[in-house]
Amino acid sequence: MQKLDVAVLGATGAVGQRFVQLLDNHPWFRVAEVIGSDRSAGHRYGDIARWILDGQPPASVADLQVKPLDAELMSPLVFSALPKEAAELREFALAEAGHVVSTNASVNRMVDDVPLLLPEINADHIGLIDVQRRRRGWTTGALVANSNCTIMPVVMSLAPLMPFGVTKVMIVSAQAISGAGYPGVPSLDIIDNLVPYIGGEEEKAETEPLKMLGQFDGERILDLDAIASATCTRAPVIDGHLVTVAVELRDKPSLEAVIEAWNSFRGPDPVPSLPSAPAQPVIYMPQADRPQPRRDRNAGNGMATSVGRLRPDPLLGYKFVALSHNTIRGAAGCAILNAELLAAQGYLGDFQPVNRNVELTRS
Amino acid sequence: MQKLDVAVLGATGAVGQRFVQLLDNHPWFRVAEVIGSDRSAGHRYGDIARWILDGQPPASVADLQVKPLDAELMSPLVFSALPKEAAELREFALAEAGHVVSTNASVNRMVDDVPLLLPEINADHIGLIDVQRRRRGWTTGALVANSNCTIMPVVMSLAPLMPFGVTKVMIVSAQAISGAGYPGVPSLDIIDNLVPYIGGEEEKAETEPLKMLGQFDGERILDLDAIASATCTRAPVIDGHLVTVAVELRDKPSLEAVIEAWNSFRGPDPVPSLPSAPAQPVIYMPQADRPQPRRDRNAGNGMATSVGRLRPDPLLGYKFVALSHNTIRGAAGCAILNAELLAAQGYLGDFQPVNRNVELTRS
Amino acid sequence: MQKLDVAVLGATGAVGQRFVQLLDNHPWFRVAEVIGSDRSAGHRYGDIARWILDGQPPASVADLQVKPLDAELMSPLVFSALPKEAAELREFALAEAGHVVSTNASVNRMVDDVPLLLPEINADHIGLIDVQRRRRGWTTGALVANSNCTIMPVVMSLAPLMPFGVTKVMIVSAQAISGAGYPGVPSLDIIDNLVPYIGGEEEKAETEPLKMLGQFDGERILDLDAIASATCTRAPVIDGHLVTVAVELRDKPSLEAVIEAWNSFRGPDPVPSLPSAPAQPVIYMPQADRPQPRRDRNAGNGMATSVGRLRPDPLLGYKFVALSHNTIRGAAGCAILNAELLAAQGYLGDFQPVNRNVELTRS
Amino acid sequence: MQKLDVAVLGATGAVGQRFVQLLDNHPWFRVAEVIGSDRSAGHRYGDIARWILDGQPPASVADLQVKPLDAELMSPLVFSALPKEAAELREFALAEAGHVVSTNASVNRMVDDVPLLLPEINADHIGLIDVQRRRRGWTTGALVANSNCTIMPVVMSLAPLMPFGVTKVMIVSAQAISGAGYPGVPSLDIIDNLVPYIGGEEEKAETEPLKMLGQFDGERILDLDAIASATCTRAPVIDGHLVTVAVELRDKPSLEAVIEAWNSFRGPDPVPSLPSAPAQPVIYMPQADRPQPRRDRNAGNGMATSVGRLRPDPLLGYKFVALSHNTIRGAAGCAILNAELLAAQGYLGDFQPVNRNVELTRS
Repeated sequence: MQKLDVAVLGATGAVGQRFVQLLDNHPWFRVAEVIGSDRSAGHRYGDIARWILDGQPPASVADLQVKPLDAELMSPLVFSALPKEAAELREFALAEAGHVVSTNASVNRMVDDVPLLLPEINADHIGLIDVQRRRRGWTTGALVANSNCTIMPVVMSLAPLMPFGVTKVMIVSAQAISGAGYPGVPSLDIIDNLVPYIGGEEEKAETEPLKMLGQFDGERILDLDAIASATCTRAPVIDGHLVTVAVELRDKPSLEAVIEAWNSFRGPDPVPSLPSAPAQPVIYMPQADRPQPRRDRNAGNGMATSVGRLRPDPLLGYKFVALSHNTIRGAAGCAILNAELLAAQGYLGDFQPVNRNVELTRS
Repeated sequence: MQKLDVAVLGATGAVGQRFVQLLDNHPWFRVAEVIGSDRSAGHRYGDIARWILDGQPPASVADLQVKPLDAELMSPLVFSALPKEAAELREFALAEAGHVVSTNASVNRMVDDVPLLLPEINADHIGLIDVQRRRRGWTTGALVANSNCTIMPVVMSLAPLMPFGVTKVMIVSAQAISGAGYPGVPSLDIIDNLVPYIGGEEEKAETEPLKMLGQFDGERILDLDAIASATCTRAPVIDGHLVTVAVELRDKPSLEAVIEAWNSFRGPDPVPSLPSAPAQPVIYMPQADRPQPRRDRNAGNGMATSVGRLRPDPLLGYKFVALSHNTIRGAAGCAILNAELLAAQGYLGDFQPVNRNVELTRS
Repeated sequence: MQKLDVAVLGATGAVGQRFVQLLDNHPWFRVAEVIGSDRSAGHRYGDIARWILDGQPPASVADLQVKPLDAELMSPLVFSALPKEAAELREFALAEAGHVVSTNASVNRMVDDVPLLLPEINADHIGLIDVQRRRRGWTTGALVANSNCTIMPVVMSLAPLMPFGVTKVMIVSAQAISGAGYPGVPSLDIIDNLVPYIGGEEEKAETEPLKMLGQFDGERILDLDAIASATCTRAPVIDGHLVTVAVELRDKPSLEAVIEAWNSFRGPDPVPSLPSAPAQPVIYMPQADRPQPRRDRNAGNGMATSVGRLRPDPLLGYKFVALSHNTIRGAAGCAILNAELLAAQGYLGDFQPVNRNVELTRS
Repeated sequence: MQKLDVAVLGATGAVGQRFVQLLDNHPWFRVAEVIGSDRSAGHRYGDIARWILDGQPPASVADLQVKPLDAELMSPLVFSALPKEAAELREFALAEAGHVVSTNASVNRMVDDVPLLLPEINADHIGLIDVQRRRRGWTTGALVANSNCTIMPVVMSLAPLMPFGVTKVMIVSAQAISGAGYPGVPSLDIIDNLVPYIGGEEEKAETEPLKMLGQFDGERILDLDAIASATCTRAPVIDGHLVTVAVELRDKPSLEAVIEAWNSFRGPDPVPSLPSAPAQPVIYMPQADRPQPRRDRNAGNGMATSVGRLRPDPLLGYKFVALSHNTIRGAAGCAILNAELLAAQGYLGDFQPVNRNVELTRS
């Protein structure tokens, strides 16, 4: 199979680097273009990108020349790790020009006809692309977004409970520093410390889940009718957002039923066979003191959500903790999974992934 | 004024060391006896105590010989930093023998006739000592306890709101490692990590506040009629427990009224003039990202509680964050303040502190 | 090929867990027995081992029952992660009983006829096993040791420079907390801190390299004639020992020649084709600020040593920094590589590894 | 006594904040002017300075309006925490305009007629001010500098050994993040990590000590005739630079003599009676594992240097570790002490400190 060329926007930043890392040896996609800021455009990626992940950038990408933000792109598929301001217009322009854009930027997430896609839980929202194309007069282009990284462990753990009726949710997050990009959080602010505030995060955390867990009626997303309250804090952790969740469930299921719902949860076909899909999307850990960010963030190659400490809550009924890797499942990994779903569903033009069942191995 | 001799039980441990540190140059009390485990008994304190606080142990205490747990004590006032098992019987035995015991141990906190004292908020609970003495036939002895360190920022921030009617409280803590004593939390468990579980802590956090905020009717404490829910987690922070709190207030005060209640809150006389009492017990910080453990734990010499981020909560009405120093206000410092209140109220026999208004300076 | 059964001594500890993790899916070896302390013996490994590495213990080992230290072992090959005291006699007893023992314990390292083996640099020291067997009357048993974890980046970086004449070495280490085992370093000692002392470490660091870099004359190891000085410190890093090294080289090679020596260094046949051998044992990093523990410890699956910052030293001539993963290359991984060398060289009885060239993939 | 008005240049930065903090309640000086960047000029200090130290800025300074860098200053004494580029010309211009400038900036340190002052060890270098004034035609102005923060524990620990003949020094530093200012080191670079490189630091560390330990011959400083080699690394520590030092001493004193030299070392009169001077400038700690940054950085209110682990070195003769607080003794505190010396020696015009013996108490 010929791999599909992809471009990465904002490739030198923290999330951009994750895209580059996760796409190395991807069975379907191949990084053909890297796009950066004016400062980095024209330079060799390996020279200009200050690589902040482990080890070194993949050799094949290191040798690419960084293109400027306004370059005309050749790749049918574009991953965006642009900052908010740059993303707002550029992503739509690229989609209009015929590219399929899978973005991690927050700015266009709540636009009416942009699916906030999470394959395991709302794969049917992909139908909104048809609405998007029809409304905007696009034929091959599209724009899909993934959720905020903090919300990821929340929606992944709530989705399996939707049949019980989710009505109220109280969230307190302890978020990793990589969520703030690079240079991001100054070390003087966070070593031996916690910062109980992350600008704009709580608003996203109280709205995005309702869209993601909402219903697609063929024309639009009807938000979930529930109330969410969030407090977002920063902790001295490299990767992995931990959330404590209290939730009200209309049907009052037993704790056992909740655990069973998590462990047996699977995305609809063809999601489980997509290369980046974890074998088990939500893993309940029976140990008293898990999940923990450092020990559990890489579960399912960073794509699984770990849940633990389910117990009764005297106020809302149920409480637990949940954890997802914020720059893999909560950012680049999810955007890649979204693109895999688009490919498998025929939204990427002629491109036909054949070896859909080959599981991706990542070192 | 002749200073009163005091003994410190469990003096070589983490909280014991805080007692020794805070009592150095105390205007009323003087450490005359240090009591340790069998391992340390008979040794010079400065040689056997592995000092884990900053700098070195005070010279005057360093030269004391550590006494065994069953030693007969000379000091009228005894501070206890004993572990749970050792504390249970020994503290009552010492009180029965005529000593006034101010303990930080958890084991006797919920005993009916033991006041869970916090001078600024329930100084009148001291009357339970009269019940205690009458019931047990003691004349000079007494046993008073301070609260769990996690609960400290919760009750300190809720006490000023009691007039508004506190009915429901949801707490999520991020607790410092010093709360686990020494050696306590292994570094392999907590660097670049969070542990979402602390054994036994949530039970205390859901019950102790109700006793502390309860009413003393002359014979017993009537618990506050409210529901508390707690999730307790450990974070890589040296000192300072941060709690996020959501609370339901019956009278729906304005946010301004809540802030005013905090900033104007003072303990009843003679509490504000006790040597260890902070000038302002609860400090509301207007900055968006405060309080923070490292930057605010030492407010009021570690005896003030800092509060911030008050905002509406769509579920319970109000939410905010609060912070107290866990081994000062939340442990040794509070036990000392409790003893100061006992002294000022005449519960320490003949001892009459004269210079009640001298504020304690600590370096 | 039938895999060879192996036993892991001290399997529940920090290094023992690394053995279990690294041996999962090993192409030649299969963990058949796990041996633990009296406390854990008789329990299922997955229940009694407090797993401190990422994720969960491998399923196949989790189901094994832990055997007591004095159990009769069935496995021809034994890996030892025993503490010093337990190791001293037990390892020799097992070798005498016919087992080949590859140990990470320090206690028997400097015994005259025990090879301190590091396949890339002194594979010929394996001949000392013949001396050992002859002298002790053993036929199938043997005892080989790997070096102290701190010394690993030192000897790995010095070995390629041996042709230039190594005469003086000054070492300052910054060692990861995992080097102290579990529970190991209390978090109260190391967060926002450094501890400039590690008991017994400097003595090892000043002697073991001389044996490892020494010559085997057919009967004994003649220590390298050089002087080593070491200062060992502990830093708040999970894994990866960083050493700064100043070295005097008799032949005064150019900096380019030194770098070329590092990058072109390979072990003698069959070492490069052993399953755990890294493709490039020593990697010189040209970046100004590398190697760094978190970013480079996993180079070569944790088996490569990263070197950087080579520059002239006004006192000894050359200085640089070097880094190895302390619990992989510096402990369990090296002991496994040692055993692979023994297998390939026919020291493991009949066992003949056939697919010697299959490279081990580890996730 | 009327306090002397002082100005702080670069007052909103990390070191500028330390100046403001340390000068709060200073017995001789009073912060009258705060100077900041264009961004902050015109704003109230308390509003525009993002306070990164503990607690809050002193109330008296919080209400000052920040002046722009080119403002005409009223204060006779100016403390400079300017960045390198801004400092180079501005400091000389202010001195030329008649101000006494005590700077922490590095850029003018090695200028021939600028004393690199450290009161305890080279108070006589103050005579270079007379040369400076004569040569430049200044009457009341002057420019003095303090050393690089990394060098501070090195020169403080070597100065007492000068009588033994210091000939060679090998230094490896582990430096705190506050040394890089704010925002400074990104947390993604340093948590669970070490960075073995700090730009420009090693050059300073190999030259500044020779000037500081040099002889003033009435006209110029004759550098110490010794060789220094430095490796500088960054560690995840908030404050406190730890250095490991190996040194050659011509006279081969006993270890006891070295320790005695440290503990008995005092600056010449009037240095010991200056308000910021620590009672004992160099403290030898007999414990095996001290000094440690978090536990010992505040010795002597952050102005004492702690030394430990003295032992023979097989290469240079002696080795030990030393620690100073990098933003107090190694920056603002030293610049203040320098200014106190200037005041006491009559270099601040009419200003006559009377209560020279009052020791400064800092909380």
